[in-house]
Amino acid sequence: TKPQYYGHSTRNKSTSVLLPNSDEFSVRHIGPRKADQAKMLKLLGYESLDELTESAVPENIRLGRDLNVDQSIGEHAILDRIRDISEKNEIWRSYIGMGYHNCRVPHVILRNIFENPGWTTQYTPYQPEVAQGRLESLLNYQTLVTDLTGLPVANASLLDEGTAAAEAVALAHRQNKRRKVYLSDRVHPQTLAVVKTRAVPLGLEVLVGDVTQIDFSNRDACAVLFQYPDTEGTIHDFSTVVKNAQTNGTMVICATDLLALTLLQPPGELGVDVAVGTSQRLGVPLGYGGPHAGFFACKNNLVRLMPGRMIGVTRDANGKEAYRLALQTREQHIRRDKATSNICTAQALLANMSAMYGVYHGPHGLKAIANRIHNAAILLKRGLEDAGHTVKNEAFFDTIKVNATLATSEVRMRAQQKEMNLRYFRDETVGIALDETVEKEDLDDLFWVFNCRNTTAEKVAKNLGEALPAEHISHSSLSRTSTFLTHPIFNTYHSEAQLVRYMKILENKDVSLVHSMIPLGSCTMKLNSTTEMMPCSFPHFTQIHPFVPPEQALGYRVLFEELEADLCEITGYDKISFQPNSGAQGEYAGLRAIMSYLDARGESHRNVCLIPVSAHGTNPASAQMAGMKVEPVNVDKEGSIDVDHLKSKIEKHQKNLACLMITYPSTNGVFEDNVKDVCHMVHEAGGQVYLDGANMNAQVGLCRPGDIGSDVSHLNLHKTFCIPHGGGGPGMGPIGVKYHLEPYLPSHPIIDPMALMQKRARSFGVVSAAPYGSAAILPISWAYVKMMGPQGLREATQVAILNANYMAKRLEKHFKVLYRGNKGLVAHEFILDMREFKKSAGIEATDIAKRLQDYGFHAPTMSWPVAGSLMVEPTESEDKAELDRFCDAMIMIREEIRDLEEGRSDPACNLLNMAPHPLVTLTSSTWDRPYTREQAAFPAPYLRPESKWWPSVGRIDDIYGDRHLVCTCPPMETYTSPHET
Amino acid sequence: TKPQYYGHSTRNKSTSVLLPNSDEFSVRHIGPRKADQAKMLKLLGYESLDELTESAVPENIRLGRDLNVDQSIGEHAILDRIRDISEKNEIWRSYIGMGYHNCRVPHVILRNIFENPGWTTQYTPYQPEVAQGRLESLLNYQTLVTDLTGLPVANASLLDEGTAAAEAVALAHRQNKRRKVYLSDRVHPQTLAVVKTRAVPLGLEVLVGDVTQIDFSNRDACAVLFQYPDTEGTIHDFSTVVKNAQTNGTMVICATDLLALTLLQPPGELGVDVAVGTSQRLGVPLGYGGPHAGFFACKNNLVRLMPGRMIGVTRDANGKEAYRLALQTREQHIRRDKATSNICTAQALLANMSAMYGVYHGPHGLKAIANRIHNAAILLKRGLEDAGHTVKNEAFFDTIKVNATLATSEVRMRAQQKEMNLRYFRDETVGIALDETVEKEDLDDLFWVFNCRNTTAEKVAKNLGEALPAEHISHSSLSRTSTFLTHPIFNTYHSEAQLVRYMKILENKDVSLVHSMIPLGSCTMKLNSTTEMMPCSFPHFTQIHPFVPPEQALGYRVLFEELEADLCEITGYDKISFQPNSGAQGEYAGLRAIMSYLDARGESHRNVCLIPVSAHGTNPASAQMAGMKVEPVNVDKEGSIDVDHLKSKIEKHQKNLACLMITYPSTNGVFEDNVKDVCHMVHEAGGQVYLDGANMNAQVGLCRPGDIGSDVSHLNLHKTFCIPHGGGGPGMGPIGVKYHLEPYLPSHPIIDPMALMQKRARSFGVVSAAPYGSAAILPISWAYVKMMGPQGLREATQVAILNANYMAKRLEKHFKVLYRGNKGLVAHEFILDMREFKKSAGIEATDIAKRLQDYGFHAPTMSWPVAGSLMVEPTESEDKAELDRFCDAMIMIREEIRDLEEGRSDPACNLLNMAPHPLVTLTSSTWDRPYTREQAAFPAPYLRPESKWWPSVGRIDDIYGDRHLVCTCPPMETYTSPHET
Ligand SMILES: Cc1ncc(COP(=O)(O)O)c(C=O)c1O
Ligand SMILES: Cc1ncc(COP(=O)(O)O)c(C=O)c1O
Ligand SMILES: O=C([O-])O
Repeated sequence: TKPQYYGHSTRNKSTSVLLPNSDEFSVRHIGPRKADQAKMLKLLGYESLDELTESAVPENIRLGRDLNVDQSIGEHAILDRIRDISEKNEIWRSYIGMGYHNCRVPHVILRNIFENPGWTTQYTPYQPEVAQGRLESLLNYQTLVTDLTGLPVANASLLDEGTAAAEAVALAHRQNKRRKVYLSDRVHPQTLAVVKTRAVPLGLEVLVGDVTQIDFSNRDACAVLFQYPDTEGTIHDFSTVVKNAQTNGTMVICATDLLALTLLQPPGELGVDVAVGTSQRLGVPLGYGGPHAGFFACKNNLVRLMPGRMIGVTRDANGKEAYRLALQTREQHIRRDKATSNICTAQALLANMSAMYGVYHGPHGLKAIANRIHNAAILLKRGLEDAGHTVKNEAFFDTIKVNATLATSEVRMRAQQKEMNLRYFRDETVGIALDETVEKEDLDDLFWVFNCRNTTAEKVAKNLGEALPAEHISHSSLSRTSTFLTHPIFNTYHSEAQLVRYMKILENKDVSLVHSMIPLGSCTMKLNSTTEMMPCSFPHFTQIHPFVPPEQALGYRVLFEELEADLCEITGYDKISFQPNSGAQGEYAGLRAIMSYLDARGESHRNVCLIPVSAHGTNPASAQMAGMKVEPVNVDKEGSIDVDHLKSKIEKHQKNLACLMITYPSTNGVFEDNVKDVCHMVHEAGGQVYLDGANMNAQVGLCRPGDIGSDVSHLNLHKTFCIPHGGGGPGMGPIGVKYHLEPYLPSHPIIDPMALMQKRARSFGVVSAAPYGSAAILPISWAYVKMMGPQGLREATQVAILNANYMAKRLEKHFKVLYRGNKGLVAHEFILDMREFKKSAGIEATDIAKRLQDYGFHAPTMSWPVAGSLMVEPTESEDKAELDRFCDAMIMIREEIRDLEEGRSDPACNLLNMAPHPLVTLTSSTWDRPYTREQAAFPAPYLRPESKWWPSVGRIDDIYGDRHLVCTCPPMETYTSPHET
Repeated sequence: TKPQYYGHSTRNKSTSVLLPNSDEFSVRHIGPRKADQAKMLKLLGYESLDELTESAVPENIRLGRDLNVDQSIGEHAILDRIRDISEKNEIWRSYIGMGYHNCRVPHVILRNIFENPGWTTQYTPYQPEVAQGRLESLLNYQTLVTDLTGLPVANASLLDEGTAAAEAVALAHRQNKRRKVYLSDRVHPQTLAVVKTRAVPLGLEVLVGDVTQIDFSNRDACAVLFQYPDTEGTIHDFSTVVKNAQTNGTMVICATDLLALTLLQPPGELGVDVAVGTSQRLGVPLGYGGPHAGFFACKNNLVRLMPGRMIGVTRDANGKEAYRLALQTREQHIRRDKATSNICTAQALLANMSAMYGVYHGPHGLKAIANRIHNAAILLKRGLEDAGHTVKNEAFFDTIKVNATLATSEVRMRAQQKEMNLRYFRDETVGIALDETVEKEDLDDLFWVFNCRNTTAEKVAKNLGEALPAEHISHSSLSRTSTFLTHPIFNTYHSEAQLVRYMKILENKDVSLVHSMIPLGSCTMKLNSTTEMMPCSFPHFTQIHPFVPPEQALGYRVLFEELEADLCEITGYDKISFQPNSGAQGEYAGLRAIMSYLDARGESHRNVCLIPVSAHGTNPASAQMAGMKVEPVNVDKEGSIDVDHLKSKIEKHQKNLACLMITYPSTNGVFEDNVKDVCHMVHEAGGQVYLDGANMNAQVGLCRPGDIGSDVSHLNLHKTFCIPHGGGGPGMGPIGVKYHLEPYLPSHPIIDPMALMQKRARSFGVVSAAPYGSAAILPISWAYVKMMGPQGLREATQVAILNANYMAKRLEKHFKVLYRGNKGLVAHEFILDMREFKKSAGIEATDIAKRLQDYGFHAPTMSWPVAGSLMVEPTESEDKAELDRFCDAMIMIREEIRDLEEGRSDPACNLLNMAPHPLVTLTSSTWDRPYTREQAAFPAPYLRPESKWWPSVGRIDDIYGDRHLVCTCPPMETYTSPHET
């Protein structure tokens, strides 16, 4: 049986006219219709898109030809292709464990969050008034993590367990400055690898072994890290280690399993300082390793050192409880190379899924699931033992390690017959990690695999008798006694109708791309199309454990190969690594590759990284983490790199120059004319060029980093390549490199993506827990490229540039547009300067950002890269009418400012400083403002009460929140009828 | 490769304890937790659910055992099972045509409407203030239909093309009272079958033949029906027929194809009176025949005779333009056996999908699609002719009929090799109907099938040269010259971002189950769970043409067999017919089956149908259409059938009694004690019993219609069996019958569901265009039954009864609860009498219904079955807190009425008569009401500005709308920037 499509019609002359592609995607992806484009071009004084972009893009870097990627494929045909590809993956039962467990993703969460653009297309909640829904959900996530770990604070997700552990070690080092770190040899191998990789530039000495034997009394260990339960499944009582370590000032880090903690004494109660791990098994599919949320919880004293975003409770202008990102001063966008971490995009969407999993199951449900798995593990152990095998674990939760009476090769063969993946240790023992999906039939199959004749789960169960089996955790001293998730949120929404309504209330509090444009400079909030998203739910993508034998993941292999080929062609690079699962991770990986390359050339002294002052905060933060010395380079008044300053810096650091890290087009939104020369200068000085690919949306099909002279770039697939932002992740930050850097790309201890390179491979290490990062969302970018084809990709870039220039043109009479290229054109984004209004009207960029909410818009990027500015990036997906609405809003706000400047409005209470205006204010009997309700709520003709999108709270009080830090769910009323009898 | 589940664990003693089902569905489906149930039971004075329902359900009808259906299966395991079943269907390329064409469902519409509970779980828009979104979309649908057909009015969907044609004939007969009807023999056979079936009870003489030859001058023909293009693909110029017919007072009905009409002169311009058809090919999957929307358009003079719901434009209390159902007095719930039709549930969701397809493609897009298909058909014809075959059609759009030089058996064999379905005519010719999905590779395969050596689409295309081929429609006199879809709505939302936002704005105007309970008596608005809905998108269900050879649809066969077995067990019937695609259709089919049965017994004189006066309007309407004489039976003051009156009616009509048609539990919400006796009485008198199954939600697992004494029932699967209401359809109304009625069930001319019965079959005819009605939504009901299992099904019913009784108890102190059974209990719904408030406070049921919108609730069923009442049905899916919120709202409204009664409120302007209060009112500077904004908007503590759901308009003015009838999109402003340069 064949699906209905057989590829697209190739464009032969005649049938291409008579039977044109009928579901061409690019016309759906690109917003402005041809007629609108013509109008916009006319305003700018250009005849065609080509004419415009030839003016915008410097001649010496122009590609001047079509990209050599496949011709566009229709929206329906692409789904058939990707389904075929996915089905090359084989769905076996994977009992490998190692931090990845199959689970039952509640369909109601899958469909209403993961497959719902109302949730997936949200931006990171930097504008809290239009993000209360996901802020609440992420606070639920933090509460889930703190309650289960027994620690008081947690963040709103990190990228995965490996990086969370590495962040914990870095935190320990930052806090106590010591240089030795002990890692248990019973930590998951990929976690060890990531921690070891990240320890190198920090200058840490890493010791791996049995942590119960360490003598901490030298007081030179910054941290000790162990896993609980450990990677082999054993539950060890670490209280002595904890005590010894802490007595000697060593920080204790525990990698752990949230589900196990429903039965086990939580790390916090054992005295642990930091607990890390992944919440994947709480309702997020395996997805060949990602995306899923890493978690990080710690003691109160460490909160200001904690990496990543944290949600906190505060109040709004009306004194009403509200949520927002807390303690942002820790983050890279503020502290740059002094930041606690380079993490920026995290895993908000997946944290939300896990949070909802917790909300849906509640404490009793979670415990029931854990108990069920534990029971299954006990049955398995008993059955195996009865048949003569040895189970190595004394205490365990869901994972056991077996010394079989038959040869491991036989076990493996029999497991293959049953299409089961187990973990095969070097010492010929076999690991089996059970999960939420286990049924007694699975146990029976496992007994068969181990040749346990006549053993069935049923028989073993019968033999257990009535009493709780002796090895049940609840008999142990490590049995959990404390309650958790007692908050009403986790005890209310347990029917599907209730959960759907709860999720809908949250969704409707948040602005996303389903409401209006989100013109965030540097973020490329473009269309995330349905067709691109659909394959992410295909079972053959979602149900694959990252460590299955590669021959079971051939579908993923095809996906990687095809996407790599396309991205190489688009960027002009020779090789792609898919391991970094965020842009910042890509930066780190790229910079480490550069360092390794230099090292291999005998130039390990080269460690200076030149970074323009306008750079994104992750750039200096990553450089610092990669062990580089950051040297800032000035930017001239046109917004471009100050070449003279650069030259002097190069001269000054000639000997130690490792690299220049630039963004192109620049973070100021300009195509710098001299970029090629700049790259050349750096190469001449023996340095490498890292080109931050965040702005690829202005380049695709027009010019290529590889041609410009860059050696390595990360690509934020969650920007240019259509992965939705998810309210703060997932993202993907694969890096592209030139041939000479290939050998140094990330490797992996279990599935090595460098295997193909064989002897050439000289990897610097491992940056993500999974070999290919968040592999499961790569179909999005793959589909985007395939559906757009060479013409579509190019046109998208051209329209992105057109849209930005059109808006800049419309707004330039009203605001100062800060930087432009030498033909007066901007690239795909532009900066509006708001600083003058401070003096003229007492108005700051924030006021304008908040006032935009009243106009139904999410604010542009605020005060970056220039303080007091707004950076606007429309993307190609926004149509002319939407651009016009936004421009009109800005122009009307300018008039509102003029009213202040000219004394017509009250400086103490006006439309801007009181913005946003939520419904609680507008529908109140009391109205004591010097302006009308209509002026507040419906200043523009397109704003209608029946269709306007409303902020759900008034202006957030950030300072109050940071002073009164509350990072778990605050008390809540549950509904009790006042009239009930 | 096996999926992860292997069925549920059977409940063996020990593993069932240690490894219980871990994703048991019933706890998600049923709202109140056990602890809440206990509280509610306590209030009612019962110890357990069993005790309660033993009191509620009369002893002599209680089932007293578990249903013999499979034990419950988990939410994940069920998906694996249904996927396996679906994959027994084979996806071939179907070029069969006959009104069903494969198409490209835009993924953005699939996901955001069809798979979105915000759209699927809406109710029919009887409360227009909370339904403006889908009313707008359905108005778009009407505009699409009127523009394309060239007729001035259209309704908002009928069930399919066959019934639409039958309705048109009935309308003609109703209008001109003539008794002869001419049908073209080139109308789709299933349409002919439905029309013929429906003509019988109307006493019409049906003549089938070549309509161009008819002499209308006898002036005895009520109507003539032809197809344009006809079933063989030929486009005939019917203008002479139209003229001759109309000169002689014969109404002209044209079955047509909306896509063809983008190129063809529309029926309206040909002078046709009524155009009918299906809009399936406009963005709705094949789905083995349904659901999809039938359409009906007509001249202005027929509008008041038009069947089905029609959306019209009116104004609200603020004079603002708004939409609502127009001319409702035509409908069965008002006119009963005098209604224009029995149609109630139609196909709103599918009409919305087609409307959005029109909005997304716009006029140019639709025309491009049509042209592309037409081009393909021309290429096909040329290629076949070049190879020596004869193509019978002179003019055609997408379908041709071929007389091949090779044997048809050879063509068929070769087509099978290519997995292609063609239409094989009796005369050995072959029909080929191309569709939107056709690619040149498909044409090449077709050339291969017809053994056209060396013919390829490309070569044929090259031979065509540059000029438009001679047979292109645009050369013909029937080429369309008029424009269509010029309204901005069809010319604005052509990018995905725009369409998503448009759909979201509409969605957010409408109350659905994602917001709050919809307590509509007799409608059973229960949870429509995600897991149940997911299989409806499986390609192996959606991509099957209804007339494929049965061996390609074995998955559907398994589905039907399993669901039939379960429904037989649940109802106590012996056989199910899945053909009726709504409850009303089921009634009609069931009554016709009864008539045929009586006829076969030589009792064709029996034609009296006794119907209680409280019956749903479809009952008398269907009986009348089935050729019965409706005799009303009184209801006593307890709400039960007045048995004495019934007896006297039976006596009076003894000889002619055909049947009694009752609803159980009664439409008044009571389990009548004597129902068994009543059935017995009817049987004794030689009649049959039709038990309307709309209230099955009070019976499942507790009692069964078949045991009660009924002979036939329809089951509204869109009520009890979880098919979502879709804003007014789709539904399914299969009928269950006792053994003696089996032979008379619906048949079908193409795929006969009665084939199994062989010689016993004596079908009365055909009621739907597709053999199994809306087969594609049956997985919903199948999954519901399988996931609930016997215990779950029974508990659901018990909780439905508990919820209703709990609410009745809470409200009885404040309102008069009209009817109860003799233990003081109601069934699953209850009626609140509002009539007294008319006198005491000048308040009517409508005012209370509208005021409930301010409290965030959809009103209960209004003024049915009792005028001036509200009928509340909570269903089992609503939790206690939601029931309490609703009860509190009602109680607070009662207090608001008291304020009027006691003179504290202004009788001319108060919270009730001014309700609902939309945001335009609440956020206005002007506030001249004698109550506060807070009283208007936030009367209850659970109502919060940030989470409240808002009506989008003020009270609708129905009368204005009916007086100034506008049934297509009214003028609309498009956004033009006031500031643009
Ligand atoms: C210029 C630039 N570089 C790097 C990054 C970091 O990417 P990520 O958030 O994926 O870590 C961003 C993100 O906004 C950026 O704008
Ligand atoms: C009692 C009763 N009978 C019949 C029907 C008609 O069913 P349908 O709307 O599916 O045609 C209804 C619909 O609400 C009903 O409540
Ligand atoms: O439409 C109904 O009457 O349910």
